[in-house]
Amino acid sequence: MTTTISQHVRVSYEFPVIFTRDALGSANPALASAFGRAGPGPHRAIFVADDGLVRAFPDILAHISAYCAANAEVLTLAGAPFTVPGGEGAKADMRVIDMVLDAIFQQGICRQSFVVALGGGAVLDAVGFAASMAHRGVRLIRMPSTVLAQNDAGVGVKNGINWFGRKNFLGSFAPPFAVINDFALLEGLAPEDRRAGLSEAVKIALIRDGVFFEWLWDNRKPLGALEQAPLEYSVERCAALHLGHISQGGDPFEFGSARPLDFGHWCAHAMEERSGGVLGHGAAVAVGVALDSIYSRLIGLIGASDTDRILTLLEDLGFALWHTSLDGLDVRAAVEAFREHLGGELALSLINGLGSRIEVDNVDNARMAQAMEELQRRAGSRICTR
Amino acid sequence: MTTTISQHVRVSYEFPVIFTRDALGSANPALASAFGRAGPGPHRAIFVADDGLVRAFPDILAHISAYCAANAEVLTLAGAPFTVPGGEGAKADMRVIDMVLDAIFQQGICRQSFVVALGGGAVLDAVGFAASMAHRGVRLIRMPSTVLAQNDAGVGVKNGINWFGRKNFLGSFAPPFAVINDFALLEGLAPEDRRAGLSEAVKIALIRDGVFFEWLWDNRKPLGALEQAPLEYSVERCAALHLGHISQGGDPFEFGSARPLDFGHWCAHAMEERSGGVLGHGAAVAVGVALDSIYSRLIGLIGASDTDRILTLLEDLGFALWHTSLDGLDVRAAVEAFREHLGGELALSLINGLGSRIEVDNVDNARMAQAMEELQRRAGSRICTR
Repeated sequence: MTTTISQHVRVSYEFPVIFTRDALGSANPALASAFGRAGPGPHRAIFVADDGLVRAFPDILAHISAYCAANAEVLTLAGAPFTVPGGEGAKADMRVIDMVLDAIFQQGICRQSFVVALGGGAVLDAVGFAASMAHRGVRLIRMPSTVLAQNDAGVGVKNGINWFGRKNFLGSFAPPFAVINDFALLEGLAPEDRRAGLSEAVKIALIRDGVFFEWLWDNRKPLGALEQAPLEYSVERCAALHLGHISQGGDPFEFGSARPLDFGHWCAHAMEERSGGVLGHGAAVAVGVALDSIYSRLIGLIGASDTDRILTLLEDLGFALWHTSLDGLDVRAAVEAFREHLGGELALSLINGLGSRIEVDNVDNARMAQAMEELQRRAGSRICTR
Repeated sequence: MTTTISQHVRVSYEFPVIFTRDALGSANPALASAFGRAGPGPHRAIFVADDGLVRAFPDILAHISAYCAANAEVLTLAGAPFTVPGGEGAKADMRVIDMVLDAIFQQGICRQSFVVALGGGAVLDAVGFAASMAHRGVRLIRMPSTVLAQNDAGVGVKNGINWFGRKNFLGSFAPPFAVINDFALLEGLAPEDRRAGLSEAVKIALIRDGVFFEWLWDNRKPLGALEQAPLEYSVERCAALHLGHISQGGDPFEFGSARPLDFGHWCAHAMEERSGGVLGHGAAVAVGVALDSIYSRLIGLIGASDTDRILTLLEDLGFALWHTSLDGLDVRAAVEAFREHLGGELALSLINGLGSRIEVDNVDNARMAQAMEELQRRAGSRICTR
């Protein structure tokens, strides 16, 4: 006497990722056009800004208010723009979540109203998670302010905070309503923060686009000097590759166990956790990519000259290839924590060419130890400190 | 110098809703088959049970363990089944969320492992919300134990908890991996809890299915006496109508502002909040459906005899049509709170026939006050107390 109804639910999301400059200049239509996609306004919005961004651009909250006033037929401030603590600390506890939920409640932001988040990846992750929970999801516009957020996290469909000491233990899949990548915001960054995002560009070039790898190689000196023009191109190309993977990869909400974009990330996650949040994601990914490139060579997937080019590229971009959080790392436990986070059987991305990814289901701990020794030797006294 | 990438993300969910009896009997394959959809096992799972269910069926935790042992090739217990507080209190704070997250963390439940939730709608909502956040979503199997959960909340795609005193202020859209509707669980319910879910059957019949309304009308006496056979049919038909709406309504995650299934719910939400969680959802929906049926008549949408049949049906099913939380209700504020929750412009469902829904964008407060007076008069001394 058992009967079954088979239920099918299909959901479709569409959002623009806009690359522009001076998005809050009153004549720039990008942000207003993003709101305009929701139909006739004015649409109510709250703006939440990373305090690091506000330190770099002290007038930015005033610019937000002026922009809203100049575009009053499209959007209206539901409350004064406010700041939240930036950096990985934004994800370390419930503080940012609580601040955003309070504002959503106090200002009566509904599912058709907007939260606009300006900041680095950690702030976007925490604010985005809060926005995704309130009323089961209010509309989120992201304005990423770091290279890493503009070329990777800020254009994706995920958010999260750390919990139980585990990176992104809590979070959700929640595509934004729009993303505005304002290149002018990058000019407020400290050099190490402009550099940090370049490791994700190297990562995605290595697993998806050999032509982009060659471009990074040819431009490694100006990129290492953090020149703006090649930096902007690298952001746009890297973001496009990430977006393409999410839309065409067949599993945007990661129901399966493959995580093809996570090259070098098992180690990066472990380093970030072991550093207690001191080590930034970009710096950690540089080390992780270097390590897994050497490991790829040791198990016969790539040759010595390719490996050397990868390490040289990372070095010329200004990355240190070792961090003290790697000393004494339990590889087996770190790989298992990563497996548990992604779920199911282990599926680790490696490379079998410059621009070509391959998936393995186990790690040879002896070879990985050898890779770590080799990496530490290569890094020498050049050890990253954050 | 502005360029735009238009990103498209499509996500598809498929899950079975299985109607059965004695699902935890070791010979019943329904639950094991639900796990089996995930591929070869054994799959790791934690089981979370509503304490009200465990009071009604003291052996149920032992039955869970026995079932897992008898189906060890398919599923394995990652930890001992445990109970959480049931009833609306399950959603009143973070306690249940914290218990479930702790278990997910301690037992190493990953995105490919399972949380199985047994209980009423409130427990399913809270456990489901926790499961949807951990690792950005672990697999959830729901085993609803009340009429209301089996015919409505438990088969849907939403979860949530109350926050800031607002019903479902926090939550997410997260389709389950499977739903097992075990009719035997309904036999453990107190009479008022078996009755409660019938108001949702009346609601969905009124807005979608005149034939089902006539069936409810013809069977109002045995249903009012809570006879098992018609109760089971009503659950299956009501669940099927809800499922059909979600899959075919075109907006399963409610990005637009229409909430076509919410007939009678603006008032029900207000009553539940004003009662401080004492009033159950089913009893509140019965009053809300009665009120909006009278209002539909007062603005000329349905006739007097249809309205009288609706009220008589609700009365014969055993519902009281008034609750003290309605005394002095500020209709304008309650409608506005409901609008804010669903977002955008007001879109209120009314009926213009038995089985036919119509949407309005405003409420005539004088007419609504008149409808409330009339409803209170009809209810007389028969006032619902929970």
